[in-house]
Amino acid sequence: MPFVKIDLTREGVTREQKQQLISGVTNLITEVLNKDPHLTHVVINEIELDNWGYAGEQVSILREKGITADKK
Amino acid sequence: MPFVKIDLTREGVTREQKQQLISGVTNLITEVLNKDPHLTHVVINEIELDNWGYAGEQVSILREKGITADKK
Amino acid sequence: MPFVKIDLTREGVTREQKQQLISGVTNLITEVLNKDPHLTHVVINEIELDNWGYAGEQVSILREKGITADKK
Amino acid sequence: MPFVKIDLTREGVTREQKQQLISGVTNLITEVLNKDPHLTHVVINEIELDNWGYAGEQVSILREKGITADKK
Amino acid sequence: MPFVKIDLTREGVTREQKQQLISGVTNLITEVLNKDPHLTHVVINEIELDNWGYAGEQVSILREKGITADKK
Amino acid sequence: MPFVKIDLTREGVTREQKQQLISGVTNLITEVLNKDPHLTHVVINEIELDNWGYAGEQVSILREKGITADKK
Repeated sequence: MPFVKIDLTREGVTREQKQQLISGVTNLITEVLNKDPHLTHVVINEIELDNWGYAGEQVSILREKGITADKK
Repeated sequence: MPFVKIDLTREGVTREQKQQLISGVTNLITEVLNKDPHLTHVVINEIELDNWGYAGEQVSILREKGITADKK
Repeated sequence: MPFVKIDLTREGVTREQKQQLISGVTNLITEVLNKDPHLTHVVINEIELDNWGYAGEQVSILREKGITADKK
Repeated sequence: MPFVKIDLTREGVTREQKQQLISGVTNLITEVLNKDPHLTHVVINEIELDNWGYAGEQVSILREKGITADKK
Repeated sequence: MPFVKIDLTREGVTREQKQQLISGVTNLITEVLNKDPHLTHVVINEIELDNWGYAGEQVSILREKGITADKK
Repeated sequence: MPFVKIDLTREGVTREQKQQLISGVTNLITEVLNKDPHLTHVVINEIELDNWGYAGEQVSILREKGITADKK
């Protein structure tokens, strides 16, 4: 009985990327825990940049300063 | 001190249905646990169909295939 | 596709009361939204009294003062 | 490793107020728990008034009746 | 800035399985969204079987009836 | 109508620190948003170190390696 919630900043995640997250997480849980995928739900929760704070600052301000969350 | 969060797919839930969920859950908790309803909050969180995955697939795709969540 | 999380203070809720909450919420969602109950999950999350704050005070302290959450 | 989620009714909270909440919560956690702020995330989740219930009623209806959540 | 919460029934998930879930989800998000893994947090929330309801019944009761969540 | 959930690793947070978090967050919300504190709930959710992952690793393993979350 797994339920997975992914909180993300809303920064242009595409429909295809969402599908990749959903199938990837569901497959992972099926493989690691041997769970029936019909009992696994995944919810993606996109958060506005003004509404996410990191190290005390709004992500919208971090992005204006050129600070990204990209992998280097 | 109960707080209830209902995650739902965004599929045309009406204002009246939301009110029925809110009053129904609040009454249930009052009856079962004898809680003061002024300490009970209920939040309904509507999720876009692209953002909810079931059995590894986006609900938006399931709906395109004609698969619903309706009670049979 | 509903997922319901009920946050409650841990104050002796019995197994039977939990079952009443689970069946009550599931029936309510089935009736109001016509959802297949096999797609409805309900999770009860019991919180220690030191870990819940109301009006700025720990519930454990409120209880020591004789303030309850009971319906009057 | 703290993650803080603030659920609020969507009632005109400004960008500056959100920044005050984010920096205030992050500072509080840094002071009380001595946590590195680079490990603290704060998410503000704004909820439509039809989707928040208090004491069994939608907040949108409470507001129509002139009942506010303002500090007296 | 991703934060992932995995709600699971508490049924003997081992430390190694938890590590596989954590590294698997973090890698997936890094690959699909190109996110810096130092900004990704994953939390596993294990729920007692009496506290999870599926289709209106406690999972503890479903298990007593021999109904599992295993992949067939 | 604010509800605040603080997810933290379970690492010896004292009752007094919890009270400081609860009163601090409640005061902050009262000041920034002018909300009646009787409508503000704060929940602290302590997570086992095996169950929190950061950058793909369990916090329990990070701690064994001497990596802390302390402010430098």
